[in-house]
Amino acid sequence: MNSHELHRELAPKILNFFVITISTSRYEKMIKKEPVVDESGDAIKQEIITAGHKILGYDLVPDNKIKILKAFLNAVDNENVDVIVSTGGTGYSPSDTTVETLRKIFDREVEGFSDVFRMLSYNDPKVKSAAYLTKASAGIINSKVIYLLPGSPSAVTLAMKELIIPEVSHLVYIVRSK
Amino acid sequence: MNSHELHRELAPKILNFFVITISTSRYEKMIKKEPVVDESGDAIKQEIITAGHKILGYDLVPDNKIKILKAFLNAVDNENVDVIVSTGGTGYSPSDTTVETLRKIFDREVEGFSDVFRMLSYNDPKVKSAAYLTKASAGIINSKVIYLLPGSPSAVTLAMKELIIPEVSHLVYIVRSK
Amino acid sequence: MNSHELHRELAPKILNFFVITISTSRYEKMIKKEPVVDESGDAIKQEIITAGHKILGYDLVPDNKIKILKAFLNAVDNENVDVIVSTGGTGYSPSDTTVETLRKIFDREVEGFSDVFRMLSYNDPKVKSAAYLTKASAGIINSKVIYLLPGSPSAVTLAMKELIIPEVSHLVYIVRSK
Amino acid sequence: MNSHELHRELAPKILNFFVITISTSRYEKMIKKEPVVDESGDAIKQEIITAGHKILGYDLVPDNKIKILKAFLNAVDNENVDVIVSTGGTGYSPSDTTVETLRKIFDREVEGFSDVFRMLSYNDPKVKSAAYLTKASAGIINSKVIYLLPGSPSAVTLAMKELIIPEVSHLVYIVRSK
Amino acid sequence: MNSHELHRELAPKILNFFVITISTSRYEKMIKKEPVVDESGDAIKQEIITAGHKILGYDLVPDNKIKILKAFLNAVDNENVDVIVSTGGTGYSPSDTTVETLRKIFDREVEGFSDVFRMLSYNDPKVKSAAYLTKASAGIINSKVIYLLPGSPSAVTLAMKELIIPEVSHLVYIVRSK
Amino acid sequence: MNSHELHRELAPKILNFFVITISTSRYEKMIKKEPVVDESGDAIKQEIITAGHKILGYDLVPDNKIKILKAFLNAVDNENVDVIVSTGGTGYSPSDTTVETLRKIFDREVEGFSDVFRMLSYNDPKVKSAAYLTKASAGIINSKVIYLLPGSPSAVTLAMKELIIPEVSHLVYIVRSK
Ligand SMILES: [Mg+2]
Ligand SMILES: [Mg+2]
Ligand SMILES: [Mg+2]
Ligand SMILES: [Mg+2]
Repeated sequence: MNSHELHRELAPKILNFFVITISTSRYEKMIKKEPVVDESGDAIKQEIITAGHKILGYDLVPDNKIKILKAFLNAVDNENVDVIVSTGGTGYSPSDTTVETLRKIFDREVEGFSDVFRMLSYNDPKVKSAAYLTKASAGIINSKVIYLLPGSPSAVTLAMKELIIPEVSHLVYIVRSK
Repeated sequence: MNSHELHRELAPKILNFFVITISTSRYEKMIKKEPVVDESGDAIKQEIITAGHKILGYDLVPDNKIKILKAFLNAVDNENVDVIVSTGGTGYSPSDTTVETLRKIFDREVEGFSDVFRMLSYNDPKVKSAAYLTKASAGIINSKVIYLLPGSPSAVTLAMKELIIPEVSHLVYIVRSK
Repeated sequence: MNSHELHRELAPKILNFFVITISTSRYEKMIKKEPVVDESGDAIKQEIITAGHKILGYDLVPDNKIKILKAFLNAVDNENVDVIVSTGGTGYSPSDTTVETLRKIFDREVEGFSDVFRMLSYNDPKVKSAAYLTKASAGIINSKVIYLLPGSPSAVTLAMKELIIPEVSHLVYIVRSK
Repeated sequence: MNSHELHRELAPKILNFFVITISTSRYEKMIKKEPVVDESGDAIKQEIITAGHKILGYDLVPDNKIKILKAFLNAVDNENVDVIVSTGGTGYSPSDTTVETLRKIFDREVEGFSDVFRMLSYNDPKVKSAAYLTKASAGIINSKVIYLLPGSPSAVTLAMKELIIPEVSHLVYIVRSK
Repeated sequence: MNSHELHRELAPKILNFFVITISTSRYEKMIKKEPVVDESGDAIKQEIITAGHKILGYDLVPDNKIKILKAFLNAVDNENVDVIVSTGGTGYSPSDTTVETLRKIFDREVEGFSDVFRMLSYNDPKVKSAAYLTKASAGIINSKVIYLLPGSPSAVTLAMKELIIPEVSHLVYIVRSK
Repeated sequence: MNSHELHRELAPKILNFFVITISTSRYEKMIKKEPVVDESGDAIKQEIITAGHKILGYDLVPDNKIKILKAFLNAVDNENVDVIVSTGGTGYSPSDTTVETLRKIFDREVEGFSDVFRMLSYNDPKVKSAAYLTKASAGIINSKVIYLLPGSPSAVTLAMKELIIPEVSHLVYIVRSK
């Protein structure tokens, strides 16, 4: 058994997730009490449930630095939350600020998440070279693990299935070790 | 149609490029009025033309921070320029300063370009592990897209064919959106 | 012959390595005069010898910012040392600080080493998605090349065989050029 | 009339302030429902009222990065708030993190506030050379002005009387101009 | 004779200055061929002449990152220029970007200029507490000394008379030493 | 009694100092076994003794990044050392790198030391405007306090008498508190 295998063995098996969708258009619909379809948020929740973890909360905020920070800080400040996963705001349109905003308050960035995710995305024939247009990332605040995923449902599903679900317990275990 | 496909559909089809070669040896030949062969600059231009885009200008500068900045700023300050592509100065010799110099004035770095380019380079059997010796990058200034490519003709052709031509209209569309 | 092939041709053939193991548990055994097994340090030394290079020195330090800096600075200050390779402290446990500590004193980081190493690690079926949990890196101080590898023997062997031995002479040649 | 005098003339005369006290000991008393004396918070409020401005809200938080950020973000997110003034956490004890925490989310730091405040503090014979032990600062988020003052009542009064009340309308006017 | 006195003795006595005024309103007048009154630019020139130095050039640019960089880079790239002094863009209105823009390309910032200038400004009874609203600075690029002064004529005159003229030869001497 | 007065009361009365002189010319004399006069190092030692503190060690190093780091790290790694004071390398000649080098490894910079020291220097009629040419600083590593003073004996004496001796016990007390 190598150390990765050992850590996976020792890590907590059931984790509490908080899901945050960052989307100005959906937020405005919510404010107007119109029906909101959040395919990517739903995809994240689906993968959490399928893996046997729990969903502790959900928030929907616009692409606004202050609202984004408040949503993440509320989740971080909830002592039962282990993991936060967001969708949206990771691209290069001027309104995309999720990664830049969170990076400022990460205790540590999981700097390898971004390039490994792009490598997998590149191998998806529907994404291919567009893979370099995302800056999806991950980081740690107060021993909680945070994943910042793109807004598209297929990107979210790829990240959850191939990178987050397989390693999240492992990573929570590591960041809480001494 | 996913969002990448939609953006490609909506993006401007013909773009105006500015090409900059950064090479002290070629610059010195030019100053001495000796004939200059710029295989990598020519390869960039060839790919631009083949893709149906236009070349608005070309500059040749030495590996000198001030001269490099002036060349890029002149191109950025030309309101008709959409995209700037440079070749040279992206390695680890002490004279290589293109990426460090431009990074300081990027409004935003397209941080995923570098690793996706290295992944493709690694798969070229003539490059293989030497892929980790480049820091080719991309960035945005004033809604213009800038690509900083290595000095070798094969690297330039790989980047143009596999990453730049397929996504540049898409990226210009995104950075100009709201 | 392309420029990578030419540089490999011109580069110094035999280099002097310094090996540093960063491991609190092994350091404490050493302090207590208990026998220390350092499988990863040994794996690095094995690859250096196999490739025909030389080992100039070895140090074992705990996961402590000051002790780590002192070990690397002693090696850097030895004018006969060409290359320093360390193992340990590159993950996300709170005690892992090797990369953050060295980054502060690198003249330049070889920023592509990290993602290319993760790409290769991802392809190892025993590592797979755990690849994104390392921040192994490389950098340059005073024209000496430094590699910061993870603590596991298999990671160390992968990095040495596939990335370091094939390019280290090339990189030393480049950083000493003008 | 010089431009400083003109700006003071044109600036809004009555501003809405939010006051935040950062003090672990007082926060713990509040949590235990014990009486809390907050002499510095009171001194800030007194100077605001005396100057004819209004107090829109008040919060008391411990020296905790997440709680501090939440308090400031709530105040920033209140569209009626013009100015935020805090007291506490600006020194060099390990628990003092107010300035480091806020700096990360300032759009801009008012970088001259700190040294001018130290100059005035040095001239207070009770402070003298201890002036160099504070990093009181000021900054801007979303066109709101934020002052981070030390925890001592005399420091707070000095800053309010000599630096904040005389210029705050002026500064609000400037940061909202085009 | 202390070392400051010795350096002043050894330093070059006559220096070549380049003056840059950063003012959108004046730039727009110039573009429209209307008469432009530049009281602060004139005050800088007057002090240069009075001190026996020479004026090698002058430029007038708007509060625009690209235009500001181009103006300074042209002056830096002129091998006869020893010192560059600008006026304007050092405050906290959103259009003020001179210091942030130049800082990115300084080889080194003369970090003490800013606070010493604010200390002197505070002692001017017309400025007093407004002193903390400027971020006037100085820096070095390619062994040339650059001063970034506020837009008001009185601030410019204070800086020239009390800080720049007395030390500029000294500083040029130091930055060119080994 | 205000909090500054209380802290001074509670702080340790006798501290162990380590003195480091950074001077290439003196280092070269020492290497050649020529007599070395170190007026500034002596002035620091004199003030330490006069104040009733102790000198635990002394080192003399050239203006060389690696040698400077090694000297400070050795002193920091000595568990009996409370305070480190250096002289030299704080100006703007290309060889002056003390502050830039130490800043990289400070846990925290005492950011107000620099401007308060310049304010006092300005009031010395032999220094006056040359005060803005120093970047003397202070910082904290592993709960030890470090002061980086200029190379001139009069600057060193001013800093020791007016800023360091009066507050150093106070500051040591603060950085070791919780
Ligand atoms: Mg080149
Ligand atoms: Mg370890
Ligand atoms: Mg406190
Ligand atoms: Mg010196």
